[in-house]
Amino acid sequence: MSASASSIQEKSAKLSSDIRQPLPGSRKIFIQGSSKDLMVGMREVQCSATASSFGAEANPPITIYDTSGPYSDPDVEVDLQQGLPALRKSWIERRNDTLQLVGPSSEFGVARQSDPRTVHLRFEHYHPPRRARPGRAVTQMHYARRGIITPEMEYVALREDMRLQQHRKDGRYEKLLRQHAGRGFGANLPEEITPEFVRTELASGRAIIPCNINHPESEPMIIGRNFLVKVNTNLGNSSVASSIGEEVEKMVWAVRWGSDTVMDLSTGKHIHETREWIIRNSPVPIGTVPIYQALEKVNGKAEELTWDMYRDTLVEQAEQGVDYFTIHAGVRLAYVPMTAKRVTGIVSRGGSIMAKWCLAHHQESFLYTHFEEICEIMQAYDVAFSLGDGLRPGSIADANDEAQFAELGTLGELTKIAWDHDVQVMIEGPGHIPLQMVRENVDRELKECMEAPFYTLGPLVTDIAPGYDHITSAIGAANIGWYGTAMLCYVTPKEHLGLPDKQDVRDGIITYKIAAHAADLGKGHPGAQIRDNALSKARFEFRWEDQFNLSLDPEHARSLHDETLPRDAAKVAHFCSMCGPHFCSMKITQDVRDYAASQGIEEIPVAIEKGLQDKAREFREAEAKAHQET
Amino acid sequence: MSASASSIQEKSAKLSSDIRQPLPGSRKIFIQGSSKDLMVGMREVQCSATASSFGAEANPPITIYDTSGPYSDPDVEVDLQQGLPALRKSWIERRNDTLQLVGPSSEFGVARQSDPRTVHLRFEHYHPPRRARPGRAVTQMHYARRGIITPEMEYVALREDMRLQQHRKDGRYEKLLRQHAGRGFGANLPEEITPEFVRTELASGRAIIPCNINHPESEPMIIGRNFLVKVNTNLGNSSVASSIGEEVEKMVWAVRWGSDTVMDLSTGKHIHETREWIIRNSPVPIGTVPIYQALEKVNGKAEELTWDMYRDTLVEQAEQGVDYFTIHAGVRLAYVPMTAKRVTGIVSRGGSIMAKWCLAHHQESFLYTHFEEICEIMQAYDVAFSLGDGLRPGSIADANDEAQFAELGTLGELTKIAWDHDVQVMIEGPGHIPLQMVRENVDRELKECMEAPFYTLGPLVTDIAPGYDHITSAIGAANIGWYGTAMLCYVTPKEHLGLPDKQDVRDGIITYKIAAHAADLGKGHPGAQIRDNALSKARFEFRWEDQFNLSLDPEHARSLHDETLPRDAAKVAHFCSMCGPHFCSMKITQDVRDYAASQGIEEIPVAIEKGLQDKAREFREAEAKAHQET
Repeated sequence: MSASASSIQEKSAKLSSDIRQPLPGSRKIFIQGSSKDLMVGMREVQCSATASSFGAEANPPITIYDTSGPYSDPDVEVDLQQGLPALRKSWIERRNDTLQLVGPSSEFGVARQSDPRTVHLRFEHYHPPRRARPGRAVTQMHYARRGIITPEMEYVALREDMRLQQHRKDGRYEKLLRQHAGRGFGANLPEEITPEFVRTELASGRAIIPCNINHPESEPMIIGRNFLVKVNTNLGNSSVASSIGEEVEKMVWAVRWGSDTVMDLSTGKHIHETREWIIRNSPVPIGTVPIYQALEKVNGKAEELTWDMYRDTLVEQAEQGVDYFTIHAGVRLAYVPMTAKRVTGIVSRGGSIMAKWCLAHHQESFLYTHFEEICEIMQAYDVAFSLGDGLRPGSIADANDEAQFAELGTLGELTKIAWDHDVQVMIEGPGHIPLQMVRENVDRELKECMEAPFYTLGPLVTDIAPGYDHITSAIGAANIGWYGTAMLCYVTPKEHLGLPDKQDVRDGIITYKIAAHAADLGKGHPGAQIRDNALSKARFEFRWEDQFNLSLDPEHARSLHDETLPRDAAKVAHFCSMCGPHFCSMKITQDVRDYAASQGIEEIPVAIEKGLQDKAREFREAEAKAHQET
Repeated sequence: MSASASSIQEKSAKLSSDIRQPLPGSRKIFIQGSSKDLMVGMREVQCSATASSFGAEANPPITIYDTSGPYSDPDVEVDLQQGLPALRKSWIERRNDTLQLVGPSSEFGVARQSDPRTVHLRFEHYHPPRRARPGRAVTQMHYARRGIITPEMEYVALREDMRLQQHRKDGRYEKLLRQHAGRGFGANLPEEITPEFVRTELASGRAIIPCNINHPESEPMIIGRNFLVKVNTNLGNSSVASSIGEEVEKMVWAVRWGSDTVMDLSTGKHIHETREWIIRNSPVPIGTVPIYQALEKVNGKAEELTWDMYRDTLVEQAEQGVDYFTIHAGVRLAYVPMTAKRVTGIVSRGGSIMAKWCLAHHQESFLYTHFEEICEIMQAYDVAFSLGDGLRPGSIADANDEAQFAELGTLGELTKIAWDHDVQVMIEGPGHIPLQMVRENVDRELKECMEAPFYTLGPLVTDIAPGYDHITSAIGAANIGWYGTAMLCYVTPKEHLGLPDKQDVRDGIITYKIAAHAADLGKGHPGAQIRDNALSKARFEFRWEDQFNLSLDPEHARSLHDETLPRDAAKVAHFCSMCGPHFCSMKITQDVRDYAASQGIEEIPVAIEKGLQDKAREFREAEAKAHQET
């Protein structure tokens, strides 16, 4: 066994200690659907009881949407060499509309499989791919339009609705269910998410479930503006740095921190093998930009790209199990010159490759001219389109310009064609947009792309903070999510500066979980506020452990707290380091509340009118006594 | 000399090496106003020329609003023992409406000055205070309403307008001046900021210049929604941790990173001495919450607070030079019970202290009943009100509730009374507010408080991310700034968890500079986009050093870049680590642009129609040649 393969094994060994623990204070729970092989995993956070000084009551556990898959479940044995269990295998087989192939049908896939130079990198337990029987479409949109509710649809309905289902039935959650009405900007959030609701959203094209039949390991999830806002993490090595093992490990961390999908944007050597390892071990959908690999195949010479070679790349990746492809088919020849006077020209890699090709050949790109053939491939594996915004603005100066919106119009046309083939579609969006111009992006996308889900990178609301672009973009992301964007592509602090390491990935994901959740609250997504309410109640009652465990990053919250007050005793103390033991507003408020409760809240204004100064005296005396006691 | 005093001296020595450098690539410049003693300091960032491969042109320097005072000017000798030069001393004296006192007129100030136990902590070069001549008001609002343009007004007009002034006259900035129109939500942003415009804004109460006559060291700055959005940093020791020296050093770092004002929220021992050191060395206005110190004086027993003692504290602090006071005079007795059913009750420290006092005495608070006397004190030193929102929501659940808005109404009434005394006023705002409810806060504040400047803490748009609350709150802050908030109070990652250290302060300030700038862009503040445009142009042209130097945190941007590509050569390379040397979208775009330029941009669509395939051939040949050369 070579050094690289054993390095993967080392990573596997490392996973078991670091990444294989449940999150602090949490356990995995499963809700069974209509069949025994439909079990939806969620995370349940246990909460401790309220102390007697705060009114002694039990606090119910809080259920949290969980993207971490089997990795956070100590009852499952995970072996990166084997890949994850194939959760969806039986569902796919039962549909009886696919063929099991004997091996890859792409030229590159065949060649790579028999290349002695990559044998040491290859995923050992290769499963031959499936594809649709001739003439069949196997997409979730296809089933939805025919009135079929698939297990995938039922799974996402349970997954999106579960928290509420539980809480609705349980009186203990009453206080925590209190929620502000949101403003969904045209969203149509149901009180209950049923499989039938999921089906109608898929059938209309307003939502997608990216779930390639060759990625049966993935847990179905839905992207659409009437569901929870999702977050994507970009990973991938480049020719400059990083190995397969590192990328697989980053993927596992990414799903633990809450990433809903992962894009493998590798551009270096061994793209094919890296992807295989990632897909086999990923509980979330994997996206790619196939043109990156195609460009590798022609040694970086964009003008040498051909349709045949690109087509072969699509088949290669579809048979590995990629769940969605970013395809920059909207970069039309006539739009390219529109970018020449921009401050930052074309910043999308895919967009610039296609622009170069168009100019070199003085033709429309093969992505555009062969779009129907692409649809046929997507249809045969259920790969979803993520129609790329190759002309997205790379600076505030270029926001919402002619080139950007010209391309968006073309993406709308292509959406129609894809839907004619029952292929699922989402639309990629910018980029760099100042606050006052964010909303127009959503409004136009919904109109021109007939409400296909919008999937945006940020947007960054200013250009002047390299090193902090997770933050500049989270501001834009929260707003664009609130306005109706279905999935947010994360941005790390290293955007514009370098390749993200593990800490950057963590910062990027947590920041985007914040943006997505802020958008869910803003839209009034039912039940979204339960977690805020539970955490705030814990905070107010000085239940420090619960506050940490209910937070987006429990380990980080705890470590910041411990920097000031490291002793364990401090975590049950009824004060915090900001004010010290004798000067805490929450403590004082609790005194106020206790007093108000003891006197009857409504009586106080009455008491004032009646001038009952004895109450004031009683209170002062009680306080004096309390001071003596402490 | 005691250990503590020598620790201050050590800090002073340390300042000279760490903090006393100009920012990278920057130099201090001064613009002279109508008199020789009116010199406005700004920061000028030098930019290198565009490389010939990108069209060889010089890039003009960029002028940046500068809050760092003399610390970033190597020509000024700074000695923390002496304090900063008294920039405004002659202006104040020339007005001839103040008296020089022989010493403090507060009882506490007198006692503290002669207390042998604090001699080792005392600021050595004490200057006796000034106050208004009997019957005179010395506030900037007073002068403005009488048609007087003070040097302070001229200073802020130059300071706010300078970038544009320079750029308007200089053709080299033409490209960088391109800017999107903003949406100011009722703001009235002038194309040019004149001293007369400043005067009218002050006279109307729409803006304030916090500038106590006893803080002549401060550089005037203006807070109002027709000016740049400002950022405040909270510092201060608590009974749990930190020393005077650390707080002074944090203040110097805070202004270097761009903080426009600093609040000293110390609650521990030696509040009086800490404040003196900070004010004497601060080039920005200092705010405090006097009730914190008053509470120390009664050993933390809120019910023992009295008007006389509070009054003495106001005079004590006004004579030290505090520029604005947070006063929670809107916490009325009848509003307190409105908070009893909240999830997080009263979370403002000042608010909870006053609520406790009100309940204990069954009376309206002395802040409310003695408000006119407070105005008389403020008027005599030009201390501005920051009317505190003692009942601000501490959780999403409590946002925009009855208690919060009841208090806001009272703050409006108090604003009227303050204005009757020509006292400057700003209004504090929340807190924790979900996205869809942020706007209502600004709209109500503008209406109920007659457009007095709004000054908000965040707001945090979700409760679930302790450890990342600089980010949850920056999302709310950018939006609320865009809607019309004049100053944003920063939040650090340690909010809710612990006391911020230097790195937390840095993260908080830079994050809030992002939010403020995003708001300025969103509002269309004239010239705000120049910096974005200049930085993006540098980025596109691979001028790495310029990209770092134009950013909000040059050292951080550089260090992140160096993590992936540490060699100096990489900083002039025409590629970056994300894509590697042969796969860079910006490089490809530049090829596209060069090609488009060489052919004439408009010709390309024509070329398609005419089927001029020879152009395509030429391009491919040129490309092939280029590949051979590299």
